[in-house]
Amino acid sequence: MKIYVILPILPHKGFEELTYKEFEAAKRPGTEIVVKSVRKGPASIESKYDEEIAAPWILEEVINAEKQGYDAVIIDCMGDPSLYAAREIATIPVIGPCEASMAIASTISHKFSVVTVLTNIVRLFDEMVKVYGFESKFVSTRSVEVPVLDLEKKREEVEEALASESRKALEEGADTIILGCTGMVGMAKALQKKLGVPVIDPAVASLKLAEILVDMKLTHSKIYFPEPPKKKRVT
Amino acid sequence: MKIYVILPILPHKGFEELTYKEFEAAKRPGTEIVVKSVRKGPASIESKYDEEIAAPWILEEVINAEKQGYDAVIIDCMGDPSLYAAREIATIPVIGPCEASMAIASTISHKFSVVTVLTNIVRLFDEMVKVYGFESKFVSTRSVEVPVLDLEKKREEVEEALASESRKALEEGADTIILGCTGMVGMAKALQKKLGVPVIDPAVASLKLAEILVDMKLTHSKIYFPEPPKKKRVT
Amino acid sequence: MKIYVILPILPHKGFEELTYKEFEAAKRPGTEIVVKSVRKGPASIESKYDEEIAAPWILEEVINAEKQGYDAVIIDCMGDPSLYAAREIATIPVIGPCEASMAIASTISHKFSVVTVLTNIVRLFDEMVKVYGFESKFVSTRSVEVPVLDLEKKREEVEEALASESRKALEEGADTIILGCTGMVGMAKALQKKLGVPVIDPAVASLKLAEILVDMKLTHSKIYFPEPPKKKRVT
Amino acid sequence: MKIYVILPILPHKGFEELTYKEFEAAKRPGTEIVVKSVRKGPASIESKYDEEIAAPWILEEVINAEKQGYDAVIIDCMGDPSLYAAREIATIPVIGPCEASMAIASTISHKFSVVTVLTNIVRLFDEMVKVYGFESKFVSTRSVEVPVLDLEKKREEVEEALASESRKALEEGADTIILGCTGMVGMAKALQKKLGVPVIDPAVASLKLAEILVDMKLTHSKIYFPEPPKKKRVT
Amino acid sequence: MKIYVILPILPHKGFEELTYKEFEAAKRPGTEIVVKSVRKGPASIESKYDEEIAAPWILEEVINAEKQGYDAVIIDCMGDPSLYAAREIATIPVIGPCEASMAIASTISHKFSVVTVLTNIVRLFDEMVKVYGFESKFVSTRSVEVPVLDLEKKREEVEEALASESRKALEEGADTIILGCTGMVGMAKALQKKLGVPVIDPAVASLKLAEILVDMKLTHSKIYFPEPPKKKRVT
Amino acid sequence: MKIYVILPILPHKGFEELTYKEFEAAKRPGTEIVVKSVRKGPASIESKYDEEIAAPWILEEVINAEKQGYDAVIIDCMGDPSLYAAREIATIPVIGPCEASMAIASTISHKFSVVTVLTNIVRLFDEMVKVYGFESKFVSTRSVEVPVLDLEKKREEVEEALASESRKALEEGADTIILGCTGMVGMAKALQKKLGVPVIDPAVASLKLAEILVDMKLTHSKIYFPEPPKKKRVT
Repeated sequence: MKIYVILPILPHKGFEELTYKEFEAAKRPGTEIVVKSVRKGPASIESKYDEEIAAPWILEEVINAEKQGYDAVIIDCMGDPSLYAAREIATIPVIGPCEASMAIASTISHKFSVVTVLTNIVRLFDEMVKVYGFESKFVSTRSVEVPVLDLEKKREEVEEALASESRKALEEGADTIILGCTGMVGMAKALQKKLGVPVIDPAVASLKLAEILVDMKLTHSKIYFPEPPKKKRVT
Repeated sequence: MKIYVILPILPHKGFEELTYKEFEAAKRPGTEIVVKSVRKGPASIESKYDEEIAAPWILEEVINAEKQGYDAVIIDCMGDPSLYAAREIATIPVIGPCEASMAIASTISHKFSVVTVLTNIVRLFDEMVKVYGFESKFVSTRSVEVPVLDLEKKREEVEEALASESRKALEEGADTIILGCTGMVGMAKALQKKLGVPVIDPAVASLKLAEILVDMKLTHSKIYFPEPPKKKRVT
Repeated sequence: MKIYVILPILPHKGFEELTYKEFEAAKRPGTEIVVKSVRKGPASIESKYDEEIAAPWILEEVINAEKQGYDAVIIDCMGDPSLYAAREIATIPVIGPCEASMAIASTISHKFSVVTVLTNIVRLFDEMVKVYGFESKFVSTRSVEVPVLDLEKKREEVEEALASESRKALEEGADTIILGCTGMVGMAKALQKKLGVPVIDPAVASLKLAEILVDMKLTHSKIYFPEPPKKKRVT
Repeated sequence: MKIYVILPILPHKGFEELTYKEFEAAKRPGTEIVVKSVRKGPASIESKYDEEIAAPWILEEVINAEKQGYDAVIIDCMGDPSLYAAREIATIPVIGPCEASMAIASTISHKFSVVTVLTNIVRLFDEMVKVYGFESKFVSTRSVEVPVLDLEKKREEVEEALASESRKALEEGADTIILGCTGMVGMAKALQKKLGVPVIDPAVASLKLAEILVDMKLTHSKIYFPEPPKKKRVT
Repeated sequence: MKIYVILPILPHKGFEELTYKEFEAAKRPGTEIVVKSVRKGPASIESKYDEEIAAPWILEEVINAEKQGYDAVIIDCMGDPSLYAAREIATIPVIGPCEASMAIASTISHKFSVVTVLTNIVRLFDEMVKVYGFESKFVSTRSVEVPVLDLEKKREEVEEALASESRKALEEGADTIILGCTGMVGMAKALQKKLGVPVIDPAVASLKLAEILVDMKLTHSKIYFPEPPKKKRVT
Repeated sequence: MKIYVILPILPHKGFEELTYKEFEAAKRPGTEIVVKSVRKGPASIESKYDEEIAAPWILEEVINAEKQGYDAVIIDCMGDPSLYAAREIATIPVIGPCEASMAIASTISHKFSVVTVLTNIVRLFDEMVKVYGFESKFVSTRSVEVPVLDLEKKREEVEEALASESRKALEEGADTIILGCTGMVGMAKALQKKLGVPVIDPAVASLKLAEILVDMKLTHSKIYFPEPPKKKRVT
């Protein structure tokens, strides 16, 4: 099975490699991974504005992936940018880490919280929770207040903040934590150990969901995501 | 008061003029209207894909509007494309016809339905209803099955279909109708007379809401729509 | 356009004048305002009991307003007393400040709170929020603990309490504040400046909504607010 | 135990006696019933307008009941007029047939429907369902289209319409029926037999709830229904 | 009327007597009470696991009760174990203390909290609240952290903890308290006095609801609780 | 990875083999499957009563599975009997086909319907949907009216009924179908082809979810499913 991972940010070699290694480590035997940044867009995604600046170029990659015969596409950003637009133009499964994480969390928890990078994007989770229908399982989104591009550099600080914000989430009623940025690579396991509750890595969740959707020959319903009418479009 | 109306589609002189006349007719004395199409994007908006293809260019116009000293921006499409992203980068009110129509409908009805152009975009209203929080007031979205660009050409057919679909909506429990496309210019009044129930014209609703937000010196809360962090962005 | 403002309390000259001035200041050119207290009822409204004691006399004024050719009626109390009963007997728009404020707030915020006069009436907002369908946008109602009739006298204390209670509301998750009493005349702007978030003055909101409903030739749906059957009624 | 039944309509001897007999037949040994019409108000209740015209005079009787040492008050109308205002001014239980019926229905059914007199008041049940919090148990309100004052005269027609409307409610997903008017005296049992599903008589439900609240020494929480502040009130 | 009270725990003479006395004290004249423990199962119920270990033996007693001509069955445990399964195999009313308490609480309060024995079972109330449809009335479940079998022994400690946990619930927004274990025998009245808000004893609530359902000749709808198909079953 | 599949029905050789083959066909390389019926319980599960008769013996097998070192447990029945009780006593993932199917469906659809065996159990899905929190994604449960044990015998009839009931579900608004019985072995693919929308096989869904939970080292949160206190229990 071949999975196409779109990084919806400007090309950044280190980040592509980090992402590739992460998916390689998490994939099951026989899964092939390609990681691809977008041609144009923002350096990182920390607002709806960033998501929409990236949108045409994410969608371009989704079309590429299907043309090249990939079995599934992952849009590797926790805001699930362009997820629904992508499903309109694709017939292979297109997966968003946020939706994947929440669906998996829903099977092991009563209530979950997200711990993300910046207060700025807390609102985006509220909106995704509503659209995806997880209101009754969702407690809160908390943030470590470190920008995406500093996550690796400030790794220790981030890990400490993740633990302390997660603990606050547990006090608020969560019993499971979802990491709120796909850039928090490899931080889930240690946090799970520290907290003693399930911690979900969103990139891994998206890969695992992709694998089983392909196994089950399932893709998004074209009734709900119909193909857009043909027309002139300039990008 | 100066209001900047963004047509989130490729420039099309006839449509710009039609839109301008519509807003001129509905505005109150002292309001000044400018209508502006986007530089790039789709010929019309009939999918989430179209919305996202238009996104960077809508946002460009939002920035222009604020720079040029306009008092408010209307994104003149019933899908409210880029509404929330726009609010992040603007401090003047940015108004979407769908949200404006639903807010006004909520004050005169118990339950409303939308009658739009194509089945394809019915789903977009479900998502807006969830994000805007009008679930308990919303009945259904029905469609006349005429593409946006044919609305003027097939005007008679559209008006008949609007009436018959609206009647079905009333049977389903609606007591008020929202026209589901800003291209249904000037069709609300006749329909309201035919049906004997309130019919809301979304472009007019967006203009009227813009006027009173400016009057009241209200704009969207920057807590909820914070300014995106500065960073490299390529469009 | 002529708008009839019903003060649902016993006649009190100072308060009528204050109200008149407030509406005059907020109206747009060409709007004509009349302010009218009810013949019988309570000295102020601070409970459901007060609202229902006033009810027959509010409804009497609604009938007067329509007979005298007014274009719209505002029931100038944040509890929206008799709003739905009034809509049954009227064909012109009848507007309540609470519903108007919440509808407008819904277009600029994610979540709003109300700051009202007394704990006693906090519950009334819970009930209005449910009936109006704003559950998913509503955070809380807080109170300054000053009775309606003392608001002017204790203006400074009230303004301080408004600021501190509003700040607590923001901590609870609100991003927008609605003043919870139409007697809090002229306090919105200063509070908005202090807090840096939108603050809605309910009397102004009701006037602005009245103006645009009249503009748009919209009134409440008579399907939802049907005319009561004729019968003997003794008041 | 002494229970005060308020008929919130103009005095009508036949109806008082009919009501008295109905409560006498349903009460348990030791319960004492008094039935009292209001001094002023409407001939019958078939709108919110009627309810509010009756309001001050219902509240007057609530005060009388408590002063005279009654153990509980029933406001004998399916619209539960003035229920919450009454609870503010009373410390003894005040019971509404609609709320009582829905609470009892909730313990024996998954989903219930109401079958009432006129389409006109269908909306009132929607509002009560929201305020009382029974949304997830409520299916629909249907009506027999016979005015309250004709229910006895057209008894046969009413009983047939009750059966046919109830069957439609069952098809819609209800498994239990609530009679939607306290004037449908003595019709529940035959209907229950005909349909083979539980049918709740709202007057009887209110009496039974009154009896057990008194038994259990429970009354409405004064936190939620606080006493109104003292002030001038003219009725 | 004859009511069969099932104690869903291993026989324990002291507890059967205590329960019998409690029901005797609360019943109205003419009600006959039998208390019966299950043959097999757990010593007490403090988890879903305990409930399901008890299930076949509770259901056995439900069958016995109906065969022996009882008018109603109470499953005397706050987790309402086997309630819905029991209703499938019975035609007489089967009542659970939790559902009964919440239904009665819904008629006197806006929001209620439960104060139960152990944190372990807090989750069970969340699930019952969802299934019974009381989400909009429910605030929280708090616990005194005393196991069921120690409630009598540590009575003083329990009563203090009940008061302090209830006060926290009131601060969280509750206005009414439901005791969260049927083993908290005779503690409701004193607590109600201490707190000044309604406190519901679940065992008493179940008895009172049983009495009026029998009075009203109401039982659970067999549409919702259909008889299971005949088949081989080994217990 | 070793997965223990519990058939919560009396041993029935043919059915064990059929189930084993189904899981073998769907598993990925390296997964080892054991299928185990319960010692006691019902011949099939078609009611809550059946589920609770099976409960102690399902739980016994869950304990066996963990003791024997299995990595995950599947309770192979669409009613997810004893799922939550099992999670209390297990630390390895325990998976129910209904919850797994709904979680996966939530990632590819807007709204899904279930098509199950008998009207009798339609209600069980309503309850699971509430507890699992999928209300906003759920349309309806429909049934083919064939008992579980006849599914194989009447295969052709079942497949036709599945198609026609699924089509009705699509008309009701579903865009994805979940097979509502784990006994509908091997019917999903043909139905998916016939309908052109995703069809989820619940047994396969549970297996695939089990595989990825084990991959991700995730199990249910012990905060939400705490270990039951030690005590005497007789089965």
